[in-house]
Amino acid sequence: MSAKLLTSVPTIEDIRASHRLIQPLVHRTPVMTSEAINKMTGADIYFKCENFQKIGAFKMRGAANAASRLSEEQLAKGLATHSSGNHAQAVARAAQVKGVPAYIVMPENAPAVKVAATRGYGAEVIFCESTPEGRQAKLEEVVAEKGAYFIHPFDDYNVIAGQATTALELLQDGPDHFHILMAPVGGGGLASGTALTAHYFAKDITVLAAEPFEVDDAYRSFHSGTIQRNETTNTIADGLRTPLSEKTFGIIREHVTDILRVDEEAIIHAMRQVWERMKIIIEPSCAVPLAAVFSYPEQFKGKTVGIILTGGNVDVGKLPF
Amino acid sequence: MSAKLLTSVPTIEDIRASHRLIQPLVHRTPVMTSEAINKMTGADIYFKCENFQKIGAFKMRGAANAASRLSEEQLAKGLATHSSGNHAQAVARAAQVKGVPAYIVMPENAPAVKVAATRGYGAEVIFCESTPEGRQAKLEEVVAEKGAYFIHPFDDYNVIAGQATTALELLQDGPDHFHILMAPVGGGGLASGTALTAHYFAKDITVLAAEPFEVDDAYRSFHSGTIQRNETTNTIADGLRTPLSEKTFGIIREHVTDILRVDEEAIIHAMRQVWERMKIIIEPSCAVPLAAVFSYPEQFKGKTVGIILTGGNVDVGKLPF
Repeated sequence: MSAKLLTSVPTIEDIRASHRLIQPLVHRTPVMTSEAINKMTGADIYFKCENFQKIGAFKMRGAANAASRLSEEQLAKGLATHSSGNHAQAVARAAQVKGVPAYIVMPENAPAVKVAATRGYGAEVIFCESTPEGRQAKLEEVVAEKGAYFIHPFDDYNVIAGQATTALELLQDGPDHFHILMAPVGGGGLASGTALTAHYFAKDITVLAAEPFEVDDAYRSFHSGTIQRNETTNTIADGLRTPLSEKTFGIIREHVTDILRVDEEAIIHAMRQVWERMKIIIEPSCAVPLAAVFSYPEQFKGKTVGIILTGGNVDVGKLPF
Repeated sequence: MSAKLLTSVPTIEDIRASHRLIQPLVHRTPVMTSEAINKMTGADIYFKCENFQKIGAFKMRGAANAASRLSEEQLAKGLATHSSGNHAQAVARAAQVKGVPAYIVMPENAPAVKVAATRGYGAEVIFCESTPEGRQAKLEEVVAEKGAYFIHPFDDYNVIAGQATTALELLQDGPDHFHILMAPVGGGGLASGTALTAHYFAKDITVLAAEPFEVDDAYRSFHSGTIQRNETTNTIADGLRTPLSEKTFGIIREHVTDILRVDEEAIIHAMRQVWERMKIIIEPSCAVPLAAVFSYPEQFKGKTVGIILTGGNVDVGKLPF
């Protein structure tokens, strides 16, 4: 299959093609429901379980899409990124499957377990100073030296189109009509992809992004019209601390209906409900949309709601309950 | 559909009919695999996920089968049992769906969370002294007073035939041929049902039951030819502390190939692997067969193995890791 890197906002055809392209690298994850949670919320909720995705998170889709769109010559030089989270493992795994090197820049204080997991996929981990500048400098150094392709965690239309395939499968495998589609928002790769898919493939649908009050940069950006940052990042939802980028913000501004904010207690409560009622493991960031359903019940009562459960990579030895 | 209570060892037709009968009360649970766990063990393992079953455990099947085989007159008087575990909730839920009362005898020191969960299904909880005699006396009192039908947790052919449907679905939904089928063994309802299904529906298959060294009554019973008890029950696998009964032992003796024992550390390790690699929540008892695969790797290498994951009801606030 021949494909090229996307250099503008993904079209409906780009998302369809991305979905075909990534097939060898991803699972089609199940859509689950919970009678108990429906009873609690009065809504009819369909959970798209990306915690069962390869590497344990939806990030596999975006990395797979970018990797699958490189020319053979480009690909042979390897993939690079900076991340100490799920995106690091996604890029490492994509490179491993493609049989090319992966160079992952991580802060020198990254948790050992994350370093080991990334190395477990055969990646070379390169440490940097734990500052945005240190990270950027080290990444540029690696890219210059190796010629590897840098897959940004979200500010890349290939990544956005890859993440957009999550909602596409949810629309295909869920009920005929959703009133609401929800995703958490950090850097905005998933939120923007979800919004694009809803725009192209669904009718009369509300797209809600959810984030912690503690890092409500997306909410402030959405309402002010310019990208805002977070002064502090005191949230358990460690995947959502990043601010939006130009590319993700542009799509979110246009296609997301609203952004809901939740407190830390609501996140922990929602996470625990999913663990206890659904018997599946989700990470804190993943619980944020359901926390919004619990926090603003009147918006969801009687509605058919699709929620993307983003990932399940959590240290089970260090739980908030 | 008309059916009668089973009063002898279930036949192949009894198991087929039981599977049809229980459909309105149970989920068809998924069969999952884990590339990571296959890599660790060198086996090709298919997990039947009864942690996703109604009430969070396979026990729903046995209770549903017994309840579905009662005459309308019998059923109207309600269902009774003694249990502070998953069977209590299974009987409560079966009664709730059938619209009849449930009377559940529980020791006065039963965990509040178990009492609440059982009441959550509309059952009446009746407390008894925390001794086998106190429990039996209270149950007989309830049955005499109410005329309710007593569904024994395992020493009942209807329950055994119900549990047997778990392996039936695993055989139907798994690969063409299994070398080995595994279930944990406590009272033996699931182990005997699994062995019967393997005997009737599979060819050239080894059936292994697994239990903790700490409560190895089934192992000792199997090898001595008479039912043995446990002097102490110091195991984290709280669902497996019960000794076998006449009915379950008779079937296990005839149709189980061998019983493997595992230590507590192996149980906790296997439980954690399933949580971390598969992102699903299983209770300690449920991890015992996989613990056996890790403990006796040479028996499983290169084999296609079916494992019944029995349940996911665990207090996530009190984990062994």
